[in-house]
Amino acid sequence: MPVHTASVTLATSGKGTYEITDRVASIIAQSGVKAGAVTLFVRHTSCSLIIMENADPTARRDLEKFFEHLVPEDTPYFEHTAEGADDSTSHIRSVLTRSSEVIPIVDGRLQLGTWQGIFLFEHRRARHRREIALSIIGGSGS
Amino acid sequence: MPVHTASVTLATSGKGTYEITDRVASIIAQSGVKAGAVTLFVRHTSCSLIIMENADPTARRDLEKFFEHLVPEDTPYFEHTAEGADDSTSHIRSVLTRSSEVIPIVDGRLQLGTWQGIFLFEHRRARHRREIALSIIGGSGS
Amino acid sequence: MPVHTASVTLATSGKGTYEITDRVASIIAQSGVKAGAVTLFVRHTSCSLIIMENADPTARRDLEKFFEHLVPEDTPYFEHTAEGADDSTSHIRSVLTRSSEVIPIVDGRLQLGTWQGIFLFEHRRARHRREIALSIIGGSGS
Repeated sequence: MPVHTASVTLATSGKGTYEITDRVASIIAQSGVKAGAVTLFVRHTSCSLIIMENADPTARRDLEKFFEHLVPEDTPYFEHTAEGADDSTSHIRSVLTRSSEVIPIVDGRLQLGTWQGIFLFEHRRARHRREIALSIIGGSGS
Repeated sequence: MPVHTASVTLATSGKGTYEITDRVASIIAQSGVKAGAVTLFVRHTSCSLIIMENADPTARRDLEKFFEHLVPEDTPYFEHTAEGADDSTSHIRSVLTRSSEVIPIVDGRLQLGTWQGIFLFEHRRARHRREIALSIIGGSGS
Repeated sequence: MPVHTASVTLATSGKGTYEITDRVASIIAQSGVKAGAVTLFVRHTSCSLIIMENADPTARRDLEKFFEHLVPEDTPYFEHTAEGADDSTSHIRSVLTRSSEVIPIVDGRLQLGTWQGIFLFEHRRARHRREIALSIIGGSGS
């Protein structure tokens, strides 16, 4: 049972959610793995991973607004603001969401539900290059 | 080292936490896997997975109340309410908890602590049929 | 492809974040696994795991303060306070962070980013002995 490692890189242009579902599905297809699981791990502390409704963009807009209210940039007791008002907020929003996700693979396909998409959730205002490490473990038999 | 895939389905009848620990433990026992890990992945964006205290029901009652206060249904800026006041709140509560959990298996047993249970956290008012995909990877040797 | 299981135990002395990155990295090195993934699972419901900025301690101080405000010990509707004011808050803070993390291994190394550390997040005031179960799956080939 081989292990396949890969990575997805993307350029972000400010706060928001960036879908990577198709890129992950394509890597699974190329791996030839038929049954197993893929681990996704974001190699940063100021952006994160989420599994989110990917049909109606208002769902993600509400999510993004919610996080602005939940972890406000002008929180008076924040000390860690050397890189700007989005510094501590980025780390805390990452901790409240996820660094890793693991998704089962059955019959060669990611077991996402009908409305599920995989997104990088960017918490920084500035442009960034982001990397998600993948590890696919499973069998290639039928 | 074989891969075992399975799923747990359950019917929910409104918001709340539904324990699935025994059903997962039974699937592990049947798999014959002695050392490895099981991935659980909820195939929906309006319910989620949590590992939670499973002895005293007041712990879960406090948790459920907390989420009602943290992501209120009457949040004035929510746009994504086509399916009701529990629409955006469901997605956001899912993002704040988890879509996937991975639990090590040692000596054929889930490595849950004494007070840990696995729960589906339903965020919708209406009845739903929910599915959790499982992928068990490990060896059957002693 | 063998499976390696291990555990990390540590003594905590009150609320806060405790880094375990080096101990996990050392277990990976000893396992001889070159490509795969490690699962970390905390066997408790009143502490949790996070991946967090590990360079500047003010980042973690802000995070810890944020959780004190987000889930206050004096929340009036909490019922589950038999073990003290940090009882329900501990479980809820655990649910808002993580019980499990999975990190890919490439070329025998954890795929953590430059600023990422692995931390146990203790939510209890009293001293505790905590255990994190590890499961390492992967190949030892080059």
